[in-house]
Amino acid sequence: MAITSWAGVPEGSDFPLWNLPYGVFSRRGELPRVGVAIGDHVLDLDLLRASGVMPEAHWFAAGTLNWFLAAGPEAWRSTRERLIDLLSDASHRPAVLPALVPMNEVLLHLPFAVADLSCFQGSLDHTTNMGRMFRPPTMDPVRKNWRQMPVAHHGRAGTVVVSGTPIPRPCGQRGDADVGPSRKLDIGPEVGYVVGMPANHPVGTRAFRDHVFGVVLVNTWRAQDLLAWEHQDLGPFTGRAFATSISPWVVPLAALEHARTTQPPQQPPPPGYLTVAEPWGLDLALEVSLNDEVISRPPYGLHYWTGPQLLTHTTVSGAQLRTGDLLTSGPISGPEDPATLLEMTWNGKNPLRLPKGAERVFLEDGDTVRITAKSALGIGLGEVTGTVRSP
Amino acid sequence: MAITSWAGVPEGSDFPLWNLPYGVFSRRGELPRVGVAIGDHVLDLDLLRASGVMPEAHWFAAGTLNWFLAAGPEAWRSTRERLIDLLSDASHRPAVLPALVPMNEVLLHLPFAVADLSCFQGSLDHTTNMGRMFRPPTMDPVRKNWRQMPVAHHGRAGTVVVSGTPIPRPCGQRGDADVGPSRKLDIGPEVGYVVGMPANHPVGTRAFRDHVFGVVLVNTWRAQDLLAWEHQDLGPFTGRAFATSISPWVVPLAALEHARTTQPPQQPPPPGYLTVAEPWGLDLALEVSLNDEVISRPPYGLHYWTGPQLLTHTTVSGAQLRTGDLLTSGPISGPEDPATLLEMTWNGKNPLRLPKGAERVFLEDGDTVRITAKSALGIGLGEVTGTVRSP
Repeated sequence: MAITSWAGVPEGSDFPLWNLPYGVFSRRGELPRVGVAIGDHVLDLDLLRASGVMPEAHWFAAGTLNWFLAAGPEAWRSTRERLIDLLSDASHRPAVLPALVPMNEVLLHLPFAVADLSCFQGSLDHTTNMGRMFRPPTMDPVRKNWRQMPVAHHGRAGTVVVSGTPIPRPCGQRGDADVGPSRKLDIGPEVGYVVGMPANHPVGTRAFRDHVFGVVLVNTWRAQDLLAWEHQDLGPFTGRAFATSISPWVVPLAALEHARTTQPPQQPPPPGYLTVAEPWGLDLALEVSLNDEVISRPPYGLHYWTGPQLLTHTTVSGAQLRTGDLLTSGPISGPEDPATLLEMTWNGKNPLRLPKGAERVFLEDGDTVRITAKSALGIGLGEVTGTVRSP
Repeated sequence: MAITSWAGVPEGSDFPLWNLPYGVFSRRGELPRVGVAIGDHVLDLDLLRASGVMPEAHWFAAGTLNWFLAAGPEAWRSTRERLIDLLSDASHRPAVLPALVPMNEVLLHLPFAVADLSCFQGSLDHTTNMGRMFRPPTMDPVRKNWRQMPVAHHGRAGTVVVSGTPIPRPCGQRGDADVGPSRKLDIGPEVGYVVGMPANHPVGTRAFRDHVFGVVLVNTWRAQDLLAWEHQDLGPFTGRAFATSISPWVVPLAALEHARTTQPPQQPPPPGYLTVAEPWGLDLALEVSLNDEVISRPPYGLHYWTGPQLLTHTTVSGAQLRTGDLLTSGPISGPEDPATLLEMTWNGKNPLRLPKGAERVFLEDGDTVRITAKSALGIGLGEVTGTVRSP
């Protein structure tokens, strides 16, 4: 990784030459267009296409990533190769420079139209914590089916919003004959997998890279009181229907090759269709902060169920896979770093003391949550933020 | 309803002049276009638009109903009025006749692009049956939250297919360490509400007609063995991800005014936001047949939770409502007419004896399921059919 970009990347930036995540941006008064992040700049890919630098990249003529996602692995590979060349070889500078836009001059949009949203619960630590809180103490905190498959529920795709979108506190049934604004508004720091190539048949774990383009950071906001009352027998509904925030930049899997790591051992081993031949854990260090104070640093590398397993399980019964499907990992808890306020405060029993002295049980109006993630070599997923508003 | 159509409607047709449901059809070698059903014919609305008979109806220039759905209640009303005039006043015959296509010459397509799918469980009889089968006998078969809200799970919009689409038997985890084709493939005869006008705020029950355009018949195919093993704690996933069939014709609410009926009393009364001022039960008689033998005739008029309640509950926590959202009623069981084979056979214990002598526990490969529904005055929802294929 000695090669650097003539465009200049500040020390510590999430977006060095070897990241090149895709997003959708606009400048004041202009329509949204596809771009790639490099340091503190966005490279305008539609302009590169229109000006003849990348004439073949017709998929960048849309104000959404969906066309590029649907273009498939060979297009993803060749485009990435071309962009690395354009941004590293200074002889391209004159042709490319007009397409470089300072990041602070742009608005970032939802990068792709979400087709179906599948919400997994793939962290053993998170699941154990939930079981310890809510299952009878005589029972195993982890249900028997949990180690056999990545359990999941379908989500509401229309509620996916881009980082920065305000989060109005949801209202609903907090319990029996108790309707009002949620008192247990909580977070869900997760990694989301973005499907590019569609399929109308079950997809094996080996075909992961043929269908999944990349990853985003996700905050699956949740109203724990609404969920607790409604979830039997059909699972989450209103309590997970109001907002799911994602980071504006989709980081290609190709940029995370170096972060791949062996996933934790799975005992008992899951059924054969969920076997993964290659290491597909992702060694990403998350950081969750509340009003600029760090409250958790969960390691995604310890996550029990990995991307290929989520993809394969989603399609095992014959579900259509569509461009824009989003599969979320489940709240990422580590052994020492819980994902949710529910876990951090043990369902409100032990208030969280923030470093600067404030206390929290669940989120209060005005609270801002920020989640970031980075690989050991400094490839970052950007950030997903949101501020709670009164209902 | 003395007025009739010059187009001629056969006795007993689901589609008399007072129905006029919308769908998407194509003739061999042509692109899909929007049409309306009248008797044994489809009226080509794109042709009527293009030929100047309905020049204002630009929403019919697309091969999907979504533009018309998004046009809103005033467009729905004026278009319906105009179509009734065109098809009843014989002076319009010369201009309209070229747009009448025999139904048997067309292929029917998915009528609209489904945005989000919300799957309710709104029948008290169905819920009671399920509880009697699977809850401890000392407990109330109906959970406490069930009478307080229409319980639901998010569905997989990408799996919605049009009537007639073959249904491959799904594979998956039938239990602990047991992977293979489902042995408990089942049906779910339901009514689905189709959202036209979007909203980005909670929608009250009084605004039902401002947002919901009409209804379709639905078969929510389900793999009961996959569901039983996977559903704890997050609800249905792979067992409800492989296929949801809908009828090709969307019947406008305006065509079902005469079928509106008082919904069953709700005790205890649900929270105030779910109160409905007007009668929104729908007196529709369903008929479910397996290989042309009727196996159930559930009455939708007795359904516990009604359309406005489903809509309002979906949005109570702030979920975006989008054009094309589909809200399904839940399997429609009557006191004597169960919705699912699970109920009819009491989870396989009592095989179903079909009138002509065959026996069934769950669906076998090659089985064809057909569901129809009609109001007392003969307004029909058409049919939703599907044949099971080996995996």
